[in-house]
Amino acid sequence: MDDLVNPAVLEHARADARVVHVGKRGGCKHTPQEFIERLLVTEARAGRTVVRLKGGDPCIFGRGGEEAATLRAAGIRVDIINGITAGLAAATAAGIPLTHRSACQGVIFVTGHAAGETEPDWSALARSGMTLVIYMGAARAAAIGQALVRGGLKPDTPVAIITHATLPTQQMQNTRLDCLAQQTEGLQIRSPSILVIGEVARHAVAELTGAGLQPQRLRQLA
Amino acid sequence: MDDLVNPAVLEHARADARVVHVGKRGGCKHTPQEFIERLLVTEARAGRTVVRLKGGDPCIFGRGGEEAATLRAAGIRVDIINGITAGLAAATAAGIPLTHRSACQGVIFVTGHAAGETEPDWSALARSGMTLVIYMGAARAAAIGQALVRGGLKPDTPVAIITHATLPTQQMQNTRLDCLAQQTEGLQIRSPSILVIGEVARHAVAELTGAGLQPQRLRQLA
Repeated sequence: MDDLVNPAVLEHARADARVVHVGKRGGCKHTPQEFIERLLVTEARAGRTVVRLKGGDPCIFGRGGEEAATLRAAGIRVDIINGITAGLAAATAAGIPLTHRSACQGVIFVTGHAAGETEPDWSALARSGMTLVIYMGAARAAAIGQALVRGGLKPDTPVAIITHATLPTQQMQNTRLDCLAQQTEGLQIRSPSILVIGEVARHAVAELTGAGLQPQRLRQLA
Repeated sequence: MDDLVNPAVLEHARADARVVHVGKRGGCKHTPQEFIERLLVTEARAGRTVVRLKGGDPCIFGRGGEEAATLRAAGIRVDIINGITAGLAAATAAGIPLTHRSACQGVIFVTGHAAGETEPDWSALARSGMTLVIYMGAARAAAIGQALVRGGLKPDTPVAIITHATLPTQQMQNTRLDCLAQQTEGLQIRSPSILVIGEVARHAVAELTGAGLQPQRLRQLA
């Protein structure tokens, strides 16, 4: 199981199940992807039923495709059970619908982690008119905000930053795109955070969730 | 409950629950959105627990945001439980991961239903380099394919068309973008269908799913 999986999920595991932690969180001990895939193949070949437990959905930034391909190449049958991807869970917890007839025709899930050659085309995304849900964007939030403003997205576009989504420690900050780009002083973006950028972020309501959500309405720059 | 909800879900309902069908499928009897929202408010105000059962996820093309806003404006508490949106379920059933480190930095869920003023900016989407998952695109598939080719997406980009995703009648067709644009003869796109367009669609494998998936590999135009 991955680090981001809530340990409470293991209550559903069989009493005799062997649990292997293979977390990959930044800064922590790192389990190489090849090791994980080799372990999956070895255990399955030994006739065991292997559950690869991931946070969110395995087919959205989850490497589920890579792992399934490795297993299938080894002749092992794979069933994938979808999950609720972090961007959707975070937005819903914050009261934000990802699409809205009056605001947009769709939603984009994109990673903010990539850089260099694999950098997303932020100006194309800015032009799309769709809700942007950015994963792993905490460290590069200001640069992403700047790229989106340069790409033509309105500086006053609402932004919601949801940290530790759906956990008791969940927090939300509401701001606007130009403030994100300038990373104004009050803005602390810890990891893991989901950024929701677009008109729908105006719908953010703190009351929707249970314990833990402490929205901080930042003063908006004129 | 909506038309697209699998009736088997109702086995989990309380024996004394009143079930109201409020389908909105094209061609069928149409329940106005205002009627649905009024009914939700009336029943909740009468002290009843109301479950608004939708197919997929309520916050992705589900009008969940509108209905929640109406209820909240009426002072009624709303809890939203996320679901597996059709585009994700369809891709997974077809063996397609929506993101893949080697292919794209993200995924776009977009409706093909809109037209005229609210038409999505297909050329921006074509330039984004991301997986495109198109909902309600069956009727306008050729026009969308043409707009994406004009927008610069490679004509040989793989396309998977998944019809009746996750149901026993599920079918998949594999083609490429130029064939979609020309709606070549063998291509029958029935509703409801999900279109997955992008390099990840190359990973489509029929074996992943159970009964019903009969992939038809269309001959590819040179």
